[in-house]
Formats: sequence, structure tokens, C-alpha cells
Amino acid sequence: MPNTPVLTIAGTDPSGGAGIQADLKTFTAHGCYGTSVITALTAQNTTGVQSVQSCPPEFVAQQLRSVLEDLGIQSIKTGMLFDSNVIRAITDTLRTHFGTNMPPLVCDPVCVSTSGHTLLQPEAVDDMITELFPLATLITPNKSEAELILSTRNLPSTITNLAEMLTASEVLLTLGPKAVLLKGGHVTSSIQDVSELAVKHPDLTVIRDGLLEENMEILQISEEDLTSRPLVVDVLRDTENVTLFLRPRIDSTSTHGTGCTLSAAIVCALSRGVSLVEAVRLGTAYTHRAIETAAPLGSGHGPLNHMHSITLRSIPKPTNTVPHPFTRSLIKSTAGIWKEYVEHEFVKQLARGALPRECFLHFVKQDYLYLRYYARAYGLLVAKSSTYSAIDNATKTIINVINEVQNHKAFCAQWGISEQELESTIESPSTTAYGAYILDVGLQGDANRLLMAVAACLLGYGEVGLWLKKESLKPETWVLTEGNPYAKWMEDYGGEHYQGAVKLGIETIEQMAEADPPSPARLKEWTSVWEKCTRLEKGFWDMALGLL
Amino acid sequence: MPNTPVLTIAGTDPSGGAGIQADLKTFTAHGCYGTSVITALTAQNTTGVQSVQSCPPEFVAQQLRSVLEDLGIQSIKTGMLFDSNVIRAITDTLRTHFGTNMPPLVCDPVCVSTSGHTLLQPEAVDDMITELFPLATLITPNKSEAELILSTRNLPSTITNLAEMLTASEVLLTLGPKAVLLKGGHVTSSIQDVSELAVKHPDLTVIRDGLLEENMEILQISEEDLTSRPLVVDVLRDTENVTLFLRPRIDSTSTHGTGCTLSAAIVCALSRGVSLVEAVRLGTAYTHRAIETAAPLGSGHGPLNHMHSITLRSIPKPTNTVPHPFTRSLIKSTAGIWKEYVEHEFVKQLARGALPRECFLHFVKQDYLYLRYYARAYGLLVAKSSTYSAIDNATKTIINVINEVQNHKAFCAQWGISEQELESTIESPSTTAYGAYILDVGLQGDANRLLMAVAACLLGYGEVGLWLKKESLKPETWVLTEGNPYAKWMEDYGGEHYQGAVKLGIETIEQMAEADPPSPARLKEWTSVWEKCTRLEKGFWDMALGLL
Repeated sequence: MPNTPVLTIAGTDPSGGAGIQADLKTFTAHGCYGTSVITALTAQNTTGVQSVQSCPPEFVAQQLRSVLEDLGIQSIKTGMLFDSNVIRAITDTLRTHFGTNMPPLVCDPVCVSTSGHTLLQPEAVDDMITELFPLATLITPNKSEAELILSTRNLPSTITNLAEMLTASEVLLTLGPKAVLLKGGHVTSSIQDVSELAVKHPDLTVIRDGLLEENMEILQISEEDLTSRPLVVDVLRDTENVTLFLRPRIDSTSTHGTGCTLSAAIVCALSRGVSLVEAVRLGTAYTHRAIETAAPLGSGHGPLNHMHSITLRSIPKPTNTVPHPFTRSLIKSTAGIWKEYVEHEFVKQLARGALPRECFLHFVKQDYLYLRYYARAYGLLVAKSSTYSAIDNATKTIINVINEVQNHKAFCAQWGISEQELESTIESPSTTAYGAYILDVGLQGDANRLLMAVAACLLGYGEVGLWLKKESLKPETWVLTEGNPYAKWMEDYGGEHYQGAVKLGIETIEQMAEADPPSPARLKEWTSVWEKCTRLEKGFWDMALGLL
Repeated sequence: MPNTPVLTIAGTDPSGGAGIQADLKTFTAHGCYGTSVITALTAQNTTGVQSVQSCPPEFVAQQLRSVLEDLGIQSIKTGMLFDSNVIRAITDTLRTHFGTNMPPLVCDPVCVSTSGHTLLQPEAVDDMITELFPLATLITPNKSEAELILSTRNLPSTITNLAEMLTASEVLLTLGPKAVLLKGGHVTSSIQDVSELAVKHPDLTVIRDGLLEENMEILQISEEDLTSRPLVVDVLRDTENVTLFLRPRIDSTSTHGTGCTLSAAIVCALSRGVSLVEAVRLGTAYTHRAIETAAPLGSGHGPLNHMHSITLRSIPKPTNTVPHPFTRSLIKSTAGIWKEYVEHEFVKQLARGALPRECFLHFVKQDYLYLRYYARAYGLLVAKSSTYSAIDNATKTIINVINEVQNHKAFCAQWGISEQELESTIESPSTTAYGAYILDVGLQGDANRLLMAVAACLLGYGEVGLWLKKESLKPETWVLTEGNPYAKWMEDYGGEHYQGAVKLGIETIEQMAEADPPSPARLKEWTSVWEKCTRLEKGFWDMALGLL
């Protein structure tokens, strides 16, 4: 998240759909750090404005100073400003603080609520024009705001079609802002209107981001052709260029706070330093989707869905105090079966030195067969790797497995079992199930999924080794270290060499989850592979104890 | 996103780190729909509170009615309440609206700011206790708030260690709330303190969510053992249970708004209907990570990072007006090379009927060889599928390819080329590159990545077919339909059968992107496979024109 500090100066909406509340939601949904200076309080909801409470101008200025003097604000929007004194308090404070280094400032010239409530005193419109517009990078009036502003100056003010919007934007630009976005939500346009205008004004840029563009014929076979539908066309004009933004009109009642949301979204884009045209393109696209994806809420004009641009993380990012959140999540979400595996009766008997010799030998023989699958799985992982370091890591694991197999052979030789006997051992179904499953995961999925399949074995034996070591160090331990025929086995898995491999394994899966944060669906898939392998590990020791 | 409506009743913080601003950010970062009733305005920042402006109690009540009467609020928190009249305005309105059906209500008994500013008039503490506490599901005092509350009632009030926290929580519970969360941020505890208390109070539940738990020995080999560090222990008590929440103390100055954030996060969890213990566990974990992941901001005590729990979507969800956002994104992000492919000179000459016969035959022969790779890729896709419907779809594509190959054979027969000649054609490097690359993607990645590798061919020929069809229908078309030796080729790819396959292909990749929203890293990987195949397609036609 960029976490860039941005500011809204506006009124409030307790119902959360408009005002600074909508702005803060929009900021957060863009990953920006939101700050907000309140110019007036309202009591409102989706049915309208019930009441307005003013805020002393000096207190507005004080809030603004508190924000500006402490946080490096990168872009600003203004919304409801209530009256002339508030406007002057704001512009004086901005000018004093920034001088000629004003960051991008978007002025949404809010005047009257949809329900007809006055949000800017009529006599203050002139102050907004003379005081605020000259500071503005962009003003974003809708049809009625533009008409009110123009009529205040006794300028031609009727806006009923796209051609008149073009003219009005030209006049509005003469009032001082660096650019004008005249919003077309209350003017119905068609693609014909756009084509006709484009003929008359060949330097017009048309952005059809909301419609199908060139070389997208294949999408038309499954999509309705929206080009012929009534369009919303926003007109952006600065001193050099005019740009039209086209999108289909949406039939929705979830439109409360549309203007607030659009200007806030533009501010987020501007804070990243993109061009004004790109900021408006991004802002209109965000707002369009926020209207279209909104679920009904309240009994009137509902709020937009500000959260369409974000998803909830399924795994937190690593921090100093929780450096391995993904491994924790795996262990916690399968705690029961994980415990049955790592504290298995086989392990306990082994640690007490009480495990029947034939059980252990059966286990070692089957493990010899299993490790061949396991080494092959890492071979598959090499083939699936994208970097030399991943190829190197997986290859080293194959070498480790081959060394482990040498240990098995040496061990078996001590107990009178030849390599030939090892090789001719009949494979238990538990061994086949586990080995073949890992290779199947490797065939079916990508490197990440295969890493999940090999993790339960690597990490589980490490956990057993450390657990037994810890238990053996307790004053009245149940672990038999001296004279235990399986002491070397315990030492190996609790020892530095094997634990180094475990550590590398943990770092690898943590990096994978951080580099490519899994969606809930994919986390479920990863966890399910991990859980299945944990069960197969438990089954492997069940098999060894039962000699099946 | 659940989008559940939740409410905060609190003061403001223009700098965005505390008050309703922090609450709204927390709500959004949990996917809840935030509403907010303002009790008082402040001018503050990370260095302290500069000024406070009260709000008329009747206007607080009006805001509250606006919210409650229109939106189905599922849980509520209160923060700064300023004075007795505001408290009574709120409790009266809540009682009138909800009667005995009060949703979960968390009261954060904010009294004094860290900088020493009064946020609740001293004489109002008693009203908070008598009016608000009885309505509360939970109160969440910190050390100094608990001490102030207890001293107001002339109760023993010193809290200097964990044992005293336990006692204080018991006394606080007698003041009326259903549960008390006494926060330990200003009391240093150790694991020994916890152990000693656990011996004295065997019914105590200890939640070590912030520390390593059972069967996690392997994490200790790479993590610092935080258990021995100074701990923060929060005490949750209701009439039946006492639960301690343990986590390591973090050395951070980013703590402005910690209490606001915690109570807001608990409210989000409660709105989903989880138990109080689970809500507090989730709330404390969220707040802990928000402190730990915060970047410095401002010159004093900076705000928390409320956004750690969310990520930005890289592909929007499909909507009615943009039903195929992923395919659009692919085409737009590779617009240049995509256009060179689908409007290739080979295609234009073919459509004019001007393509040299030997070029076309060379193309058909190489395509015959390429399609064998392509069919095999779909075989690999069958092997990588998880559902019968995916297996069915991929299998049908293999049948389609085999039919296409039959067409190639029949076509070649017309031009005097036998099947034997087809089979003995020497494979061009362009053909090998493209065919082998698709199979390599299939070996290396999962089904999704393989779908990306086969998409450029499927979709591109569909685009060419539709484009030529569209061009041929224009009044003065350049496309030769009658007497064009390649008319059948154009008809095939523009025709219903092939376009049906294209439509299915588009739906498949859109569903894949929606079911498992890609991280930016994975979207980059998918787009890179798509782009490489688009280049290889262009290279294929370059080869055909150049007869190489």
C-alpha cells in the first residue's frame, strides 16, 4: 500500500455514503492515508438531509493547520464548504501554508443536496469562484452545479446536451481553475452525439474505457453492445485539451455520494503523480464500478460500494513478532491432525527405546521406498522452478535425500538387512499412497503447490526431532537417550544439519506466500494439500506400528 | 466483502489516526460498512490535541436517528462522548430505538487524551457508568481510564501489575457492563506473572495467539523467543470466565488511536456473530499488527497501519457493463503486439485473396504440425484438471483440434498435398518454439497458467475471424469474399462453431480470475505468458509470409 497522505475538506454524512466518510473509504480503498477537515456536520441518510450544523470558521482553519503542519499532504479535495467564512478560512490557511507550492487540489463545488438541502449558502458561490477556483487543479461540477455557477456570473447557463456541456466547460475554465471536469451524469448522451462532436472538433480526445475498444471483437460475441445504449459522457477541459470519457449509463439507485467518491478517487490518483487525464480515467472507472457493484442499503438512494477495489488478506504479512505467519496458519488450521502426527505413538515408543525392533525396521524399509518418490518430487520441483536459486535449493534437497538413504542403508546393514533385501521390500499401500500423491500434486499443480506437498514431511520430522530434544532436556524426562537403540535417529532429526533444511523450507514457503499472497480459494487448496500429507504421514507411522 | 453496517459514536481526528476516522478505516479494512455519529470535533494530530469543539446533544441524537432509522446496524462502538448531555442523548436514543433488542455495543471509555486533553468532562464519568455501561456488551478501559472510573466510585483503583488488573476487572464488572476488557498496554507483565496467576486461578484461560503455541518448535529455530520478553496482557472478564490475551510488547511510537482501533475491530468481529472471546482475539491481533506494520507519519505519536489486512485487487470483479474484465486487461496491456498479431499482413493478404498460394500452403503444413502440440497441451490440461467439467471442456477441445486437422488434410488434398507430404514436412523453428513453449508452460505451471498459454491462439483466430467478417460487411470493403480461394478459412474462424469455442475459452479464463483473484505478481506472470504466445503467433505468420 502506498500510504500517501491525502486530505478531504468537506461536510459529514453519518450514514457513511457521502462527505468525509465516503472520502475516507475511497482513500482507504486506494491504499492512501486519509485525513479530513470537517466544514459542517449533517444529519442525513439515504432518504435525504435531515439537518445541518455549521462549524466555526476559525475551528475549520485550526483543523486544517493541525493536519497540514504535521503530515506531508500530497493532494487535497474540497466538498461541502457551507458558507463564505469557511471558504475564506480554508483558502487563507492553504495559501499561508503552501504559498506557491500548492499540491494538486480538486474542488467538488457542492451546492445543493439531491434532496434540495442547501449545502453552500447562495451568497458563498461567488467566494468559491473568486477564492477557491484559482487554487484548483480541477473543479468537478455536475450539470446543476455548473448551471448555478454560470448563472451567478450571469453567463449562459443552460446545459441540456453534450454540445452545451462542451461550451459550458469552456466558460467554466475562464473562472480560474486549471481544468474543468463537467460531469455528464444528469445529461443523457449517445454515441452519435459523440461522433458528431468529434467531427466538429477534430482535436477532441475520446476515451472509451467504459466501452469495448479496438481489437476486442471477440468480447462482443458474449457481451451486450453497450455503445448503442444511453451514455454518460464526462467532459474534461484544460487550456490545451478536451477529453471525453464515455461509459454506459447504469440503472441504479445506489448513487448517494457519487460526486464525493469521484473527486476523492481522482485525488488518490493525483497523489501518485499520474497525469490529470489518467487520474480522471481511473477516478471515473472506480466510481462507475462502485455504483454498479453496490448492494442495496437503506430505503432511499443507497451508498456506493467503495470496497470493490480491495480484498481481505488471507495471510498477514510477516512482521518482527510474527515472522512466519503462513507456517503458523498451516499448523493452527490443522492443529489436531498435526499433533497426532508429530506426537505419534510410534515416536513416543521410539523415544522411550521401547519400540519393537521389527516395527522400526519395517518403517525404515518403507521409508527407503518412500524417499525415492520424495527425491523424484524434488526433481519435478527443479523442472518447475523459475530461478537458478530455486533450482539450486531443490537440487540440494535431492542430495540430502540421497545421503539420508545412505544412512538408511548403513543402519539396515547394522541390523543385518542387505541392500538387496531393502530393494525387494514389498511396498505398503501407505507408502504408495503418500509417494504417488506427492508426485500427482507435482503433475497437477505449480511449484508452489508441490512445495506444500513436500512440506509436511520436511517440517514434521523437524518438529519431532526438536520436541524429543526438548523433552529429553527436562529434569524428569521420559525420553531415553543413553542406551536407546534409536538415539541416532533422534539426534539426526533434532540436529543442526536437518534443522537447517527445515529452516530453509520454512523460509521458502513464507516467501512464496508473501510474494504471491494467496486468495482464500488458493489458501484453502494449499492448506488441503498440507493437511492431506499430514494425514498420510500419520498413516505411515500407523502402518509401521501395525506392520501393514 | 460482508458489507455489514456497523456504527461508531465518537469524536473526530482530522489527522486520521483516531476517532471516527480511525474507526471508519478499521471498518473498511474488515469489509464492514461504516457509519459514524460525531459527538465532538477536535483539532489534533500526532503531537497532541490542539482544540475541541462540542456538538449540541440534540444534534448528536439527530445524527443517531438518521443512521438507526435507515440502516440495519449490526454492532456499535462508542468513543469520546464529551459530556453528560451527549451521553444521555445517545443512551435515550439507543433505548428508544432498540428497546430490549440492543445489538452488541462496545464502550471504549475515552476520558483523557495522551497529551492530557479532557475528552470527557470529569462530572460525566458517573453518567457514563450509570447510563451507558448497563447497555454495553463490553467496556474496554486502559489502565488510567479504569483507575479514573474506579476512583470516581471511591473503589480501590491502583493498577500496577497483572494481579491488580485481574482484581480491577472484577470490580469494573460490578458497574453494569456484560463484560470488561481491561487493556494491559500501560502495565508491563511477564510470562512468570501469567504462570503465577494461572496457578492461583486454575479456571483462567490463557490465549497465546501473539506467541508461539504448542507443536510449533520448528518456528523457534528461526524466531526470537518472545515469551521471555516483556508482554502486553489484556484481561477479558465476564460473569463466568476470565481470559488473558498475551502478546509481546512492541517498541513503537505509532500508537495514536490504538484504543479506537481495537474497539472498532472488536465491533467488526461481533457484527459477524462470533463469540466475545474470539472477537477480542481477532481485535487484539489486528491492532497489534496495525502498530507493528505502521510506517512513521507525523512528528509525534504516529497513526497505526489500518490497511495491513487488505490488498488492492489487480483485476476488477465482473459486472454487467464489464463482464470480461480479465480478458480486457490482457488485450489492453498487450495492445500493440495483439494488434500486430490479429491485423497481420498475412491475414490482410489472405482476406484480399492476394496471399501467394505457397505462403498459405506453408502456413497450413506448419499449422498441421503445431496443432499436434496444441492437442497435447489440452491433454496435459485434462491431467491438471480438478473437476469433471474442466476435464470435459479440455477433452472437447482436443476433439475440435482433431476435426480442424481433418479440415487441413482435406484442404491440402484439394491443393495436391498428400497426408504423407504433410507428415514429412520439416518443422520450422517458429512452430517448434511455439508448440514446445506451450507444453513447457504446461509442465512448469498449474492448469490456470496452461490456460493462459493456449488462450492467445484460441482467442486470436476468433478475433481475426470476427474482424474480417466485420470488415467484409462494410459498404466499400477491402475484403474479397466471392472468388477468394481462402473464403472457407475466413468463414471457419468467423463462424458459429469456432466462435462458440472462443466464448467458452473467455468464460473459462474469466471464471478462473474471479474464483482465485490473482496477486499483482501472478497477474504479471499470466500476462507475460499471454504476451509471449501473442508474439509467437505473430512470429508464426511472419514465418508463413517469409516461407522460413
